[in-house]
Amino acid sequence: MYSCDIKQRIRYGETDQMGYVYYGRYAEFYEIGRTELIRKLGFTYRGLEEQGIMLPVVSMNVRYIRPAGYDDLITIRTTLRKLPTARITFFYEIFNEAGDLLNEAECHLVFTDMQTRKPRRPPADLMAALEPHFV
Amino acid sequence: MYSCDIKQRIRYGETDQMGYVYYGRYAEFYEIGRTELIRKLGFTYRGLEEQGIMLPVVSMNVRYIRPAGYDDLITIRTTLRKLPTARITFFYEIFNEAGDLLNEAECHLVFTDMQTRKPRRPPADLMAALEPHFV
Amino acid sequence: MYSCDIKQRIRYGETDQMGYVYYGRYAEFYEIGRTELIRKLGFTYRGLEEQGIMLPVVSMNVRYIRPAGYDDLITIRTTLRKLPTARITFFYEIFNEAGDLLNEAECHLVFTDMQTRKPRRPPADLMAALEPHFV
Amino acid sequence: MYSCDIKQRIRYGETDQMGYVYYGRYAEFYEIGRTELIRKLGFTYRGLEEQGIMLPVVSMNVRYIRPAGYDDLITIRTTLRKLPTARITFFYEIFNEAGDLLNEAECHLVFTDMQTRKPRRPPADLMAALEPHFV
Repeated sequence: MYSCDIKQRIRYGETDQMGYVYYGRYAEFYEIGRTELIRKLGFTYRGLEEQGIMLPVVSMNVRYIRPAGYDDLITIRTTLRKLPTARITFFYEIFNEAGDLLNEAECHLVFTDMQTRKPRRPPADLMAALEPHFV
Repeated sequence: MYSCDIKQRIRYGETDQMGYVYYGRYAEFYEIGRTELIRKLGFTYRGLEEQGIMLPVVSMNVRYIRPAGYDDLITIRTTLRKLPTARITFFYEIFNEAGDLLNEAECHLVFTDMQTRKPRRPPADLMAALEPHFV
Repeated sequence: MYSCDIKQRIRYGETDQMGYVYYGRYAEFYEIGRTELIRKLGFTYRGLEEQGIMLPVVSMNVRYIRPAGYDDLITIRTTLRKLPTARITFFYEIFNEAGDLLNEAECHLVFTDMQTRKPRRPPADLMAALEPHFV
Repeated sequence: MYSCDIKQRIRYGETDQMGYVYYGRYAEFYEIGRTELIRKLGFTYRGLEEQGIMLPVVSMNVRYIRPAGYDDLITIRTTLRKLPTARITFFYEIFNEAGDLLNEAECHLVFTDMQTRKPRRPPADLMAALEPHFV
């Protein structure tokens, strides 16, 4: 298992007239979460793209448990529960400052060769960095 | 079953640097879809809020099948497959102009009393408008 | 002078907790406006990019006069007041259904060669389509 | 003069297919900037709203100088150049990590009574916190 926490403050523009974060904006929080998890491993998603690898999202499941509000400082916890193949699954939990779970999600992405647009194995060095965490 | 189609043109601001619609922006298409389905029934979501009823999203599942691109004219098809209780489930299919299925999703929402923040039955007149379609 | 009107319905996700359209979302309305003005002339902004021309925004001035609300059907009026050079200026007025002016803006964009990233003259056929409107 | 710096990392969802931050997303950076400037003074914009004061944006001028890209760590510098009256003007400069100026803007907002929707003076304690910086 490999996990990464990152904090974000809710922007006014992320709320809607219900007074809470708009349900569509959580996808950006998940994107921030996996970006930071990859950075913590010593890589960057930008670097993957520069190598000709992209990671489109193929599916996403979200559970909205409690609302997040403007100016709240949330924690985005991103977890890999198993080693990726061509497919990688990120699990997300979002907490408020009191530690309450606000939101849970999972996103499935596919390592894709930018040229051929076909799925491919994750880069060897990324796998090598992950493996010690899954023994 | 009750269904509603609405067309939308993809905005430049909805794309990301992969050259396709950002995965988080689809939630707005679903919102447009259910807004128009409710309008087609003779109601408005705005009117529901003015009556003190809100419809927060409690969960969402999305499958990204083919990408949508800038300036594409997509069709958002929103379907109710069964009568709502306090909970209502909208199914979504998004098609491009060639009729290819790009995206599938379902969103679960809960009729909620704005004062008490508790679930409640859908308004009687909305149910009356829906029932003939589910016999 | 050359002008184009397009209607848009305000999305829930475009509002913020003040109950009105978030001030940052208007830029998408302007983008919709100029996209449709170019289409009305017989071209597409997508086509320009395919020809290797892009149109980055270099400056924008906005005046927020009256708020727009959820589900409002707004009219985006986009106007060219003079022929473009390498620089093109779009003027915007946004009206509600009652015809009240909600918002005024101008955006300055530059015809840019995608390869060299340098400013360039607008395509000759686009100029030819515009010129009859500026005599 | 009173100034505040805050760093933000560019999200993938903030880019568009040109490969840079979409021009409409900068408004969120300005909102982050003024939120943090108010916090640095010992107040919060959320607190102002709880007191019945809101700060709608009445105009904005933006100059896009150099593009910002995905994963860039930008610095948002927000400056008050003079004491507010009912009207407050925030100046913004956005820098990349190399210190290059990417973007400049100014936003004019109006202290507004939520009940009456009329302009009002800024809260006395906020003025008291600002005054020592403008002597």
